[in-house]
Amino acid sequence: MSSTTQQTGLIVSAHSADFVWRAGGAIALYASRGWNMVVVCLSYGERGESAKLWREPGMTLERVKAARREEAERAAGILGASVRFLDCGDYPLRVPDEALFQLVDIYRELRPAFVLTHSQRDPYNFDHPLATHVAQEARVIAQAHGHHPEEGVLGAPPVFLFEPHQPEQCGWKPDVLLDISPVWQTKRRAFETMAAQEHLWEYYTRVALQRGVQAARNSALKIQYGEGYQRVFPQVTAELA
Amino acid sequence: MSSTTQQTGLIVSAHSADFVWRAGGAIALYASRGWNMVVVCLSYGERGESAKLWREPGMTLERVKAARREEAERAAGILGASVRFLDCGDYPLRVPDEALFQLVDIYRELRPAFVLTHSQRDPYNFDHPLATHVAQEARVIAQAHGHHPEEGVLGAPPVFLFEPHQPEQCGWKPDVLLDISPVWQTKRRAFETMAAQEHLWEYYTRVALQRGVQAARNSALKIQYGEGYQRVFPQVTAELA
Amino acid sequence: MSSTTQQTGLIVSAHSADFVWRAGGAIALYASRGWNMVVVCLSYGERGESAKLWREPGMTLERVKAARREEAERAAGILGASVRFLDCGDYPLRVPDEALFQLVDIYRELRPAFVLTHSQRDPYNFDHPLATHVAQEARVIAQAHGHHPEEGVLGAPPVFLFEPHQPEQCGWKPDVLLDISPVWQTKRRAFETMAAQEHLWEYYTRVALQRGVQAARNSALKIQYGEGYQRVFPQVTAELA
Amino acid sequence: MSSTTQQTGLIVSAHSADFVWRAGGAIALYASRGWNMVVVCLSYGERGESAKLWREPGMTLERVKAARREEAERAAGILGASVRFLDCGDYPLRVPDEALFQLVDIYRELRPAFVLTHSQRDPYNFDHPLATHVAQEARVIAQAHGHHPEEGVLGAPPVFLFEPHQPEQCGWKPDVLLDISPVWQTKRRAFETMAAQEHLWEYYTRVALQRGVQAARNSALKIQYGEGYQRVFPQVTAELA
Amino acid sequence: MSSTTQQTGLIVSAHSADFVWRAGGAIALYASRGWNMVVVCLSYGERGESAKLWREPGMTLERVKAARREEAERAAGILGASVRFLDCGDYPLRVPDEALFQLVDIYRELRPAFVLTHSQRDPYNFDHPLATHVAQEARVIAQAHGHHPEEGVLGAPPVFLFEPHQPEQCGWKPDVLLDISPVWQTKRRAFETMAAQEHLWEYYTRVALQRGVQAARNSALKIQYGEGYQRVFPQVTAELA
Amino acid sequence: MSSTTQQTGLIVSAHSADFVWRAGGAIALYASRGWNMVVVCLSYGERGESAKLWREPGMTLERVKAARREEAERAAGILGASVRFLDCGDYPLRVPDEALFQLVDIYRELRPAFVLTHSQRDPYNFDHPLATHVAQEARVIAQAHGHHPEEGVLGAPPVFLFEPHQPEQCGWKPDVLLDISPVWQTKRRAFETMAAQEHLWEYYTRVALQRGVQAARNSALKIQYGEGYQRVFPQVTAELA
Repeated sequence: MSSTTQQTGLIVSAHSADFVWRAGGAIALYASRGWNMVVVCLSYGERGESAKLWREPGMTLERVKAARREEAERAAGILGASVRFLDCGDYPLRVPDEALFQLVDIYRELRPAFVLTHSQRDPYNFDHPLATHVAQEARVIAQAHGHHPEEGVLGAPPVFLFEPHQPEQCGWKPDVLLDISPVWQTKRRAFETMAAQEHLWEYYTRVALQRGVQAARNSALKIQYGEGYQRVFPQVTAELA
Repeated sequence: MSSTTQQTGLIVSAHSADFVWRAGGAIALYASRGWNMVVVCLSYGERGESAKLWREPGMTLERVKAARREEAERAAGILGASVRFLDCGDYPLRVPDEALFQLVDIYRELRPAFVLTHSQRDPYNFDHPLATHVAQEARVIAQAHGHHPEEGVLGAPPVFLFEPHQPEQCGWKPDVLLDISPVWQTKRRAFETMAAQEHLWEYYTRVALQRGVQAARNSALKIQYGEGYQRVFPQVTAELA
Repeated sequence: MSSTTQQTGLIVSAHSADFVWRAGGAIALYASRGWNMVVVCLSYGERGESAKLWREPGMTLERVKAARREEAERAAGILGASVRFLDCGDYPLRVPDEALFQLVDIYRELRPAFVLTHSQRDPYNFDHPLATHVAQEARVIAQAHGHHPEEGVLGAPPVFLFEPHQPEQCGWKPDVLLDISPVWQTKRRAFETMAAQEHLWEYYTRVALQRGVQAARNSALKIQYGEGYQRVFPQVTAELA
Repeated sequence: MSSTTQQTGLIVSAHSADFVWRAGGAIALYASRGWNMVVVCLSYGERGESAKLWREPGMTLERVKAARREEAERAAGILGASVRFLDCGDYPLRVPDEALFQLVDIYRELRPAFVLTHSQRDPYNFDHPLATHVAQEARVIAQAHGHHPEEGVLGAPPVFLFEPHQPEQCGWKPDVLLDISPVWQTKRRAFETMAAQEHLWEYYTRVALQRGVQAARNSALKIQYGEGYQRVFPQVTAELA
Repeated sequence: MSSTTQQTGLIVSAHSADFVWRAGGAIALYASRGWNMVVVCLSYGERGESAKLWREPGMTLERVKAARREEAERAAGILGASVRFLDCGDYPLRVPDEALFQLVDIYRELRPAFVLTHSQRDPYNFDHPLATHVAQEARVIAQAHGHHPEEGVLGAPPVFLFEPHQPEQCGWKPDVLLDISPVWQTKRRAFETMAAQEHLWEYYTRVALQRGVQAARNSALKIQYGEGYQRVFPQVTAELA
Repeated sequence: MSSTTQQTGLIVSAHSADFVWRAGGAIALYASRGWNMVVVCLSYGERGESAKLWREPGMTLERVKAARREEAERAAGILGASVRFLDCGDYPLRVPDEALFQLVDIYRELRPAFVLTHSQRDPYNFDHPLATHVAQEARVIAQAHGHHPEEGVLGAPPVFLFEPHQPEQCGWKPDVLLDISPVWQTKRRAFETMAAQEHLWEYYTRVALQRGVQAARNSALKIQYGEGYQRVFPQVTAELA
C-alpha cells in the first residue's frame, strides 16, 4: 500500500472494557506505527461489568453508562485509538439489524486491514459470542456487491479472536502470539483507568507475561509480553519463516 | 539474519515422492530465494507407490529403490533441493532409534528455519503419521541441552504440515495458504519426472488451482496457484496484517 | 451452609416431560435429602410429545396443554418437586426476552445450588439446545450487578447437562455418573404417569441400567441405576478422591 | 414403496445458485431416475452473489431478483427439478416463523425421501448455516403430531449436507461420495446458465473431479465425477457392503 | 459380483469374545446370506476377560487359553463364522511385524468385502485401539503393489468400527445402524456360550434394544434390535435413499 | 474406608521435576491429610531439563542424573512424598515392557485411590504423552484378573491429567480446579529446590494464581491458588453440589 495512506485496524468489543484487557497491546502497537485504530463497543457494559459503580448510592443507568463511556475513552486515548459506541445494551446484549448495518457502514467507511473481536464461544458471557457473530456477519455483508451497490465492496481483512477470560473453557486456542513488549507500559496504563475492574489488573498482567514466555519458547526470540489471538481464516502469505 | 549466511529449510518426507506433490511449491519458492532446501526421505516408497515399476518383468526390490531414488533426485534437482535417504522401508515404514538420531543430527547440522512434513493422521497411509511423529520428535531432541551437550542446541523452527491426499479424512485443515504462483511451472516440471505416478499429475494440479482460488478469496490478492499448510505451533509475530 | 436453611436445585426443562426421563433420579435424590427442587418447563410439549393425546377425537390445544400440565405436576409430585410453566410454545419453542427475565427472576429468588438442563446440541429437537441456551443466559444475567442492582446477585451454581435421547448424535459425553439406585423406584413411578409416552418407559429404564453398570465400572462401587451428566463449568473442589 | 408412486427429493438452498454447484449431480441423477426433485431457495441471492448484474447501469433490486430467478429456473430445468422461492432476502438472510412454517408445509406436502442442504458452519457466508438450521428445524416440526394434527406427520428422511466452498474451513467432512458420472454433462450445462458466476465453473468442475478420484480410491470402482455429502443422522441399513 | 462366488467379511477382534458382543449381529446376518465370515482374534483374552476362569483352583495360562478358544469357536459356530487365532497375548496385547504380515496374508487370501474392528480409542482397554490400528495397517499393506508383487493387491474394503463398552468415553459415534432383528436370537445364543462373562449378557441385550429404537427413529422403519458402527472411510454410493 | 488405613495417591511423572510444577499442590494437600503420596519418575530428565547442569565443565550423564535425583528427592520431601525412579531415559523416553510391569507392580502394591499424570498430547515434549500412556496402560493391566492371578486386582482409581506448559496447544482442558491455597507455601518451597529450572518459578506461580482466580469465579468461594486437572474417566458420585 502507498506509504501516504493511513491504514486502519478495527476492534469490535462487546463491552466498553474488553478491548483494553484483550487487545490493548495490538491497538497500542499499531497506533505507535501510525495506524488509525478504531474500537466499536456494542455496549457500555453498564450491567455486567460495573459492580463497583452500582454500589455507589443513587446510581442510575445513565450515570453508569456515562462513567463507562468516559473510562473507555480515556483508555482508548492512552492506547492511541478512538471509540464508537452502538449502545445495544448488555446482559443481555441485543443487536437489531439496524445496528448490524451501522457496523457494515463502519466497515465500508474504514476498510480495515484487520479486525479483532471476541472468541466464538464463552459460557461465562453470552454477549461475547454474539459480538463476534455480529462482527463477522457485518464483514461478510460489507463484502457483498449488492449491498449499497453504489459503494465499493470490502476486501477480505483477516479476523483475529482475542483471548477470553478462561481460554480453555471457551475452546479458544492461540494460533498467533503477538509480541507486545514495546508497548506494554502503555497497555498497563490503559488498564489502570479501569477503576471499576481493579481486580483484573494483575490477572491480565499475568496473562501477558505467560503469553510472552510462550512466544519466546515458540520462536527462540526474546519476548517478555504477549497477546494471543486465534485466526478465523487461513493466513495467506508468501513467507513461511 | 545476516545476508551472507544461507538459510535452510528442511522437508521430512515419508516416501520419495511425497515432497514433490505436497511441498514442491514451497521448496521451489525458497530455492529461488537462495535458500538451501534439504529433503529427507525416510523411505524410497518402494512398495506402496511403485505399482508401475512392479509391473515390469523381472523387477527386484533393489531396482525399484534405485529407480525411485533417481526419480526423487531428478525432481529435487528441478525444484532446487538436495535429497537424503534413510532407507527405513515402507508399507510398513519402521523407524528405529538409530534413524531417529540420524535425523536429530541433521537438525543440528542444518539448523533449519522451518520444517515441512506430513499430517498428523492419515487412514490411507500409516507411514505418513509415523513420519511426522519422527520429524517432530527429532526436532525436540535436537533442542535438548543434554543430547550431545558439546553441540549447540536447535532453536524452535516452526513446523508446517503439508496437504494429504484426502484432506478432510485426515482431519487436516489448512491454516496457511502459500502463494506458489511464481514457481508453479517448476513444480509442474518436477511432477512430470514421477513417471510411476502419472495419474497424480492432474490431481495435484487441481489441488494447486483450488488452493490458489482460496488464497485469493481469503486475501483479495491475485493468486493463481497455492499450497496449503497446517501449523503445529502458534505463529510468533509482530505483524497482524 | 447452615443446616437450618433449605437448599434448592433448579431444573430447566424444554417440555413438560423431559425432566422426568432425564433428571428424575437427581430430583428424587435431592428431594429425599430435604432440598427444595424446582422444575421450570419452558413449554408444555403440547405439539411434539403428545401424539397419543392428539389421536383422541375433538382434541384442542388447550386440552392437550392441560393434560400435559397435570401429568407433569403428578410426576413432579412423585419425585418431590414443584413445577412452574412459562408456556413458550414448542415445535418451535420461542423464548422472548420477557420469558428470559422471568427465568432470571427465578434464579434470583431461588438461588439454586445447582442447575440441570439440556445438552448443547440435539439434531432431533431444536427446542432442547434453545432451552439450555436460555437457562445459561438467564444464569449469567442473574450474576450481573447491574441487573436490578437493588437485589443481591447470584453466585456461580454449577450447570449439569442431562442425557439426550441419542447421546452420541448430540455430542454429549457423560462426565458425571450419579448413583440414583436409592430412588430408582420413585423415578420409575414418576415415569409411569407419562401415559402419553409409554413407549419410553423401557427405553429410559435401560438407560438407567447402562449408566449404573458404567458407574460401577468407573468406581468399583456397587451401583445399579445411574444418571449421566455433562458439566458446563470446571468442578471446583478440595477433593480428588 | 410402490413402483407406481413417484418419490421426491427436497433441496433447501440459501441462495438461488447454491443448489447447482453443490447438489446439481444428485438432483440430475435422481431426476433421471424419475424422481420429483424440488428445490426451495430461501433467497434469490440478490445481494451476495450477483456482482456481475450489479455492475450493469441502472440495475435495481427487482431486476436482479428477476434475473436470478430466471437463471435458477433455467438451471433447475436442465437438471430436471422445479424451484420454489421464499424470497427471505440475503446478506443477511432472515427467516421469520411464517417462512419456517411455509417450509414445514412443503415437507408435509412432498414427504421427501431425502433432504439436501448446507453445511452447519461457514465463516464466509452466514446465510448458509441459517439455511441448514431452518431446513432441519422445519423437518422436525413436520414430524410433530401436534403441528396441524389433522395432517399426517412426516417420517424421518435423512439429511445430507452438501459441500461448501472451502470445506476444511467449515468443519465439513464428506462421509458420502456420490457417483455423478452418468449425469456430469447435465450438471455442467446447468452450471453454464449461471452467467453471473462464470468464475466458479472451473472451480466446481475441479471439485467434481477430485471427489471422483476420491470415490474411486475409496471403493476400487471406476468413478470419474463425484459429489461429497455429510450425513446429519446415522445411516439405517441392512447392508454393510 | 458373480452370484456364484461366495463373498467374505472379515472381523478383527482383539480378544476372543469381543466379536460376539460387538459384531455378532452383523456376522450372523451375513452368514445367513451365505457369506464366508472369518474372525481373526489377535489374543485369547486370557488375562483381561477371564476373571471367572482364573478363580478356579489350579488354573494355568494354557488351560485358560484353551477354554477361551473353545468358547470362541462355539460362539462363532452359532453365528456361522470361522475363527483364527494369532495368540499375541493380552493385557498387554503386543503385535510384532510377523503377526501383522500374517494378517496381511489373510487380507490377500480372503479379499473381504468389508472389515469390522474396534474403536480408535478406548481408555478402558488399550488392546482395542491397538487391534484397530493393526487391522487398518494390514489392510493398507495388502493394497500395496510392492508387497509380494506376484500376488494381486487388495481393493478398498470399507472398515466399520463396532461399539465399545462405554461409547461416549471412547469418542465413538455410530454413523451406521444395522438392523439385526432377523438374527437377534442367534446373537443372543452366541452370547450365552460366554460363560466367563455372564454379567455382560443383559448389558449387550440392552445395547441391542437401544440401537434398535434409535434405528427405528432415524428411519421410520420397524426395527427392534440394532448394532451401531462407525465408518473409517466415506461411503461410496449411487444412492442417497 | 477404615480410618486406620492410610490411603495412597500415585503420581506418574515423565521427568524428575514435572510432579513439582504440575501436581505439587495436590501432593502437599494430601500429604498434609496423612496420605501416603508416591511419585514414580520414569526418567531423571537428564537430557531435556538440565540445561544449567550441562553448562558446568566436566559434567557427565551420571553426575547429572545424581543431581536431578537429589533435587527431586528434596522437593518430594518438602511436599511430603516419596519418589521412585525407573530410569528409562529421556529425549527420548523409552519404556520397555519390563518397566511397564514394574509400574503394574507398583499399582498392585499401593492400590492408589487416585492417579495423577501428564496430558494426552504435548507437541513440545513427546515423553509426556508416552508417560501418560504407560501410566494408564499399567493401571488397566493391574485391573486384569489374569495378570498374576494370585494377587488381588486393582479397583478403578480415577486418573487426573495435570497441566502441561502450554495448555491450549496440548488440547488440555481443566475440568477440575483444586484449591491448593492451604499448601501454596509448601509448593513454592518445593519449586525453589529446582535450581536447574529457576526460570520456571515465576511462570508456575502465575499459573497457580490464574487457576485460583478461575476457581473462585467458578464457585463463588474465596480461593487464591489453584491447580487444574482434566479427568480421563467420568466422575462417579452421589453429590452434584
